[in-house]
Amino acid sequence: MKKSIGAQTIIYPAPVLIVGTYDKSGKPNVMTAAWGGICCSKPPCVTVSLRKATYSYGNIVESRAYTINIPSEKYVREADYFGMASGKTKDKFSAAGLTPIESDLVKAPYVKEFPLILECKLLHIFEIGLHTQFIGEIIDVKVDESVMDANGNIDIEKVKPITYATSSKAYHGIGKKIGDAWSVGKEIK
Amino acid sequence: MKKSIGAQTIIYPAPVLIVGTYDKSGKPNVMTAAWGGICCSKPPCVTVSLRKATYSYGNIVESRAYTINIPSEKYVREADYFGMASGKTKDKFSAAGLTPIESDLVKAPYVKEFPLILECKLLHIFEIGLHTQFIGEIIDVKVDESVMDANGNIDIEKVKPITYATSSKAYHGIGKKIGDAWSVGKEIK
Repeated sequence: MKKSIGAQTIIYPAPVLIVGTYDKSGKPNVMTAAWGGICCSKPPCVTVSLRKATYSYGNIVESRAYTINIPSEKYVREADYFGMASGKTKDKFSAAGLTPIESDLVKAPYVKEFPLILECKLLHIFEIGLHTQFIGEIIDVKVDESVMDANGNIDIEKVKPITYATSSKAYHGIGKKIGDAWSVGKEIK
Repeated sequence: MKKSIGAQTIIYPAPVLIVGTYDKSGKPNVMTAAWGGICCSKPPCVTVSLRKATYSYGNIVESRAYTINIPSEKYVREADYFGMASGKTKDKFSAAGLTPIESDLVKAPYVKEFPLILECKLLHIFEIGLHTQFIGEIIDVKVDESVMDANGNIDIEKVKPITYATSSKAYHGIGKKIGDAWSVGKEIK
């Protein structure tokens, strides 16, 4: 039996995205966002939605660039911290003991210790409501070689990304493989 | 050491979203999309990106409504099938043996057997490139009571949503809880 729970922002799985930006003075900043994902294959684009009140919002509007960093499970404390502190008053990289690396392609820093990085140039800004949606073109993806398999694909079980369970306000890891895409459905087709 | 792998559409975790629509004749259809997620808290909005070539694209433009259905792991075959067949030539609900239920709030069907449903009214259409991004206002969320915990929250370990690992083209389940949000980061703060 289905129960109506009202208009809530719940989707499973939701990602834990760490957005890297520079401020006007060149200070690197990171913030955590769960409202985002891939939104176009050609050009390759990723979306992330931020509130105007965030420090990162102004940084992206100014620099028109950012990185999306995917943290591993072992950085769950840092990922949570990046969503609670503000770059207005804190140097979050220093506080967390993580290392900002300047992208060679876009005017934005990425987190050296995180296994997967998308370097993005701002393409569009869409005002939706409380959140503003940034659409970024993915210029390059950088991956730790340690999370790649023998075929050169990224192994999600080595990346160990975090998902944010919105209803219970908890972080979860990723589970085992349950099937091959474009394949397991063929028995119905 | 990080390796540059070019501009690929990779994000972890990516969701497996089943989009429910009616066509002009009232035939219910479902398709699978991984490019989407929550994009605004107020109004509560969800985004999903579809190619114009899909049958669902025309259905959404026409009816200005759709549902986002979250399948459980045990429906991985059906979810994969919904991404391979087209509603132009197939009745995918019948082929998969699943049940379309008409939403009481929007002009769209949802999948009775799936545990979590977002009922959406189309707010915006953004053309990005190969994919068109639909922004839908979440009018209601319907949840199987069997996946709720004693506090009335949704238990992601009972929902058992599927994530799509883009690089390895595989489906994975969700893992164990690794921390509480707005909490585990306090030791850094």
